Amino acid sequence: MRIVQKFGGTSVGTIARIRCTADIVEAELARGHQVAVVVSAMSGETNRLIGLATEMDEFPCEREMDALVATGEQVSAALLAIELRRRGIAAFSYTGGQAGVVTSGDYKRARIRDIRSDHLQLQLQAGEVPVVTGFQGIDEHGNITTLGRGGSDTSAVALAVAVNADVCDIYTDVDGIYTTDPRIVSAARKMDRIDYEEMLEFASLGAKVLQTRSVELAMRYNMPIHLRSSFRDVPGTLVTKEDDMMERAAISGVAYNRDEAKITILGIPDHPGIAANVFGPVADAGINVDVIVQNVSEQGYTDITFTVPRGDYHATMEIMRGLCSSIEARDVQGDAGVAKVSVIGVGMRSHAGVAKTMFDTLAAEGVNIQMITTSEIKITVVIEEKYVELAVRALHTAFGLDA
Amino acid sequence: MRIVQKFGGTSVGTIARIRCTADIVEAELARGHQVAVVVSAMSGETNRLIGLATEMDEFPCEREMDALVATGEQVSAALLAIELRRRGIAAFSYTGGQAGVVTSGDYKRARIRDIRSDHLQLQLQAGEVPVVTGFQGIDEHGNITTLGRGGSDTSAVALAVAVNADVCDIYTDVDGIYTTDPRIVSAARKMDRIDYEEMLEFASLGAKVLQTRSVELAMRYNMPIHLRSSFRDVPGTLVTKEDDMMERAAISGVAYNRDEAKITILGIPDHPGIAANVFGPVADAGINVDVIVQNVSEQGYTDITFTVPRGDYHATMEIMRGLCSSIEARDVQGDAGVAKVSVIGVGMRSHAGVAKTMFDTLAAEGVNIQMITTSEIKITVVIEEKYVELAVRALHTAFGLDA
Repeated sequence: MRIVQKFGGTSVGTIARIRCTADIVEAELARGHQVAVVVSAMSGETNRLIGLATEMDEFPCEREMDALVATGEQVSAALLAIELRRRGIAAFSYTGGQAGVVTSGDYKRARIRDIRSDHLQLQLQAGEVPVVTGFQGIDEHGNITTLGRGGSDTSAVALAVAVNADVCDIYTDVDGIYTTDPRIVSAARKMDRIDYEEMLEFASLGAKVLQTRSVELAMRYNMPIHLRSSFRDVPGTLVTKEDDMMERAAISGVAYNRDEAKITILGIPDHPGIAANVFGPVADAGINVDVIVQNVSEQGYTDITFTVPRGDYHATMEIMRGLCSSIEARDVQGDAGVAKVSVIGVGMRSHAGVAKTMFDTLAAEGVNIQMITTSEIKITVVIEEKYVELAVRALHTAFGLDA
Repeated sequence: MRIVQKFGGTSVGTIARIRCTADIVEAELARGHQVAVVVSAMSGETNRLIGLATEMDEFPCEREMDALVATGEQVSAALLAIELRRRGIAAFSYTGGQAGVVTSGDYKRARIRDIRSDHLQLQLQAGEVPVVTGFQGIDEHGNITTLGRGGSDTSAVALAVAVNADVCDIYTDVDGIYTTDPRIVSAARKMDRIDYEEMLEFASLGAKVLQTRSVELAMRYNMPIHLRSSFRDVPGTLVTKEDDMMERAAISGVAYNRDEAKITILGIPDHPGIAANVFGPVADAGINVDVIVQNVSEQGYTDITFTVPRGDYHATMEIMRGLCSSIEARDVQGDAGVAKVSVIGVGMRSHAGVAKTMFDTLAAEGVNIQMITTSEIKITVVIEEKYVELAVRALHTAFGLDA
């Protein structure tokens, strides 16, 4: 097998952790696999470098920021290669540029355009181990670029696609994706497999184990991601496409997010452009709106309700109160004590009645649903925050997810 | 004027020092000059990185060491560029590879082969400021290489040659080269100018302000080096070729080195190959032999005396005692309490009697000369260490160097 392994900052954070990481690389080589490695910066290093730059200038030049922080991965890649060499493994560290990672020229948020990986492929065939800096590349003019924080996952998947790997192993401090938060539901189970789209939904709901971009990329090229623990050599969760999966249940898991606030604008005269009028100023303030629901309230008037991260609640309320008169709304109401609970599963496409089961279950528990929003593979409800544990446990049981 | 400026580790060692360095760059731009900058790593950073690597592996892979330590200059170059940008100066940091510095593939001791500087020249013409990492380049395969410690001076001179600069300004914590050590001779004067060859002699005698390699390179391409203080905006010492200088005195300065030990092998049967027999084992032990004098002692026998750094005295004596019987020498004697005093000057080529003045002066002070060695522009004597100050002061006065 040809494997691209990705190790995050904690896996290369100290000399001792780098040795553990080298153990993992060595073990896969011993199993006869070809291995390329993608590493993040040593944990804390990127923040140290950003600290130096912002001490220099509050808004440092973005080109120079990228050149600066890109050194973080170069250090950890070289150190891991040194350790692998010490063990007699022919390892070679590469910067993004050296590895042929060509990106757009958007500093701090570059997108990978191409990986010119001929050389790396020859190395892999020869049993050598390229150790590539994650998170970075060069643009077409040779300037150093970075993909944005957490971009190392994306680097790893892109490299796996480029060298035609069989799987991209992403090592992390959790051992996989669970049907729900084990802290709330002790019967939560680690999933052996999960569909790309489900993974995206879990990720967007705050499962911080995988960067959304990397999952999208893996989905586009059908590259399996094996999300696994860097502490225990056991299978984790394989993120792959639905077709590869056996017949399955309607729902894969239950996710939740407490970090929500709800705002309702009442009695807006209903004409084209009101949504833009409402959400334009919010977007301008850099606030991410999540769930949006619009209802007709009475003849010619509408209500709009939406959620924002709880930390942005007061700023958003202020913007809305300021808008009220200009959009001729009757009133603005808000509630910073709500939460989101979702059931997720590609199986719901072929299983009728998922929504009904969800709503019946919550009703039976006396949980009032404030908002509902659905996608093809997800149903999300907004509820009072105090009901989160109750709702998650009930849904986990109702959809047959308990171990 | 087109200027390449080089700043060492202390000049970029802190945020405050980087701001002072930016002041210097800005001042030269304000005078209408074109400026390219070469920087070392922040002081301490290279040692920190080497420490990480040797903690990983006592003898870390050299390729990876170079990739690792090269990040040091990348950080300082980016930080200086950030500060210049903050001031509205169009600065761009470049790694050695980005700046087109192509070297041999000898990791840790690479030699610069070429600088493909077309792009940098266009930038200079446009009034932009390239900030180039010193000490590093890439080999023909794109691997990161370093020039060896202190190689930043060499990078700066090579860049100055490549972009056809008028001068290479090397900023340091001293304000130039003195006629002798001001701690010994209060009348010592800063030299306005010094010839390349003289500079090489001063450097080989322990004037640590300039790397020998950088002076050799400047001499080959006739690139003036302006050695100057990063703390005071005053002229320093211009290192240039003899032809550019006005008529001058016989002697430019007096140098000394206390770190010497003397070893004499007596009564060696005189036949071809004895020097190789004596010095081969010393070189094998990694000991640098400095002054060597061989005299005929009596018919068919010879004595050899040489100096080594004082720290290598005991090791060398042991090697010599071990050799004694195999080379049929009569005896080995040593003295760890000697010092070297030199008078240096390209002017001595056209001034007769320099040696006579030197020997007369030392004789008048009662200083016994133990060894003499000469080059075209230098006369060196080995004397008892306790006479160093006396000898240096007397020679400084005798050759008319007192201010």
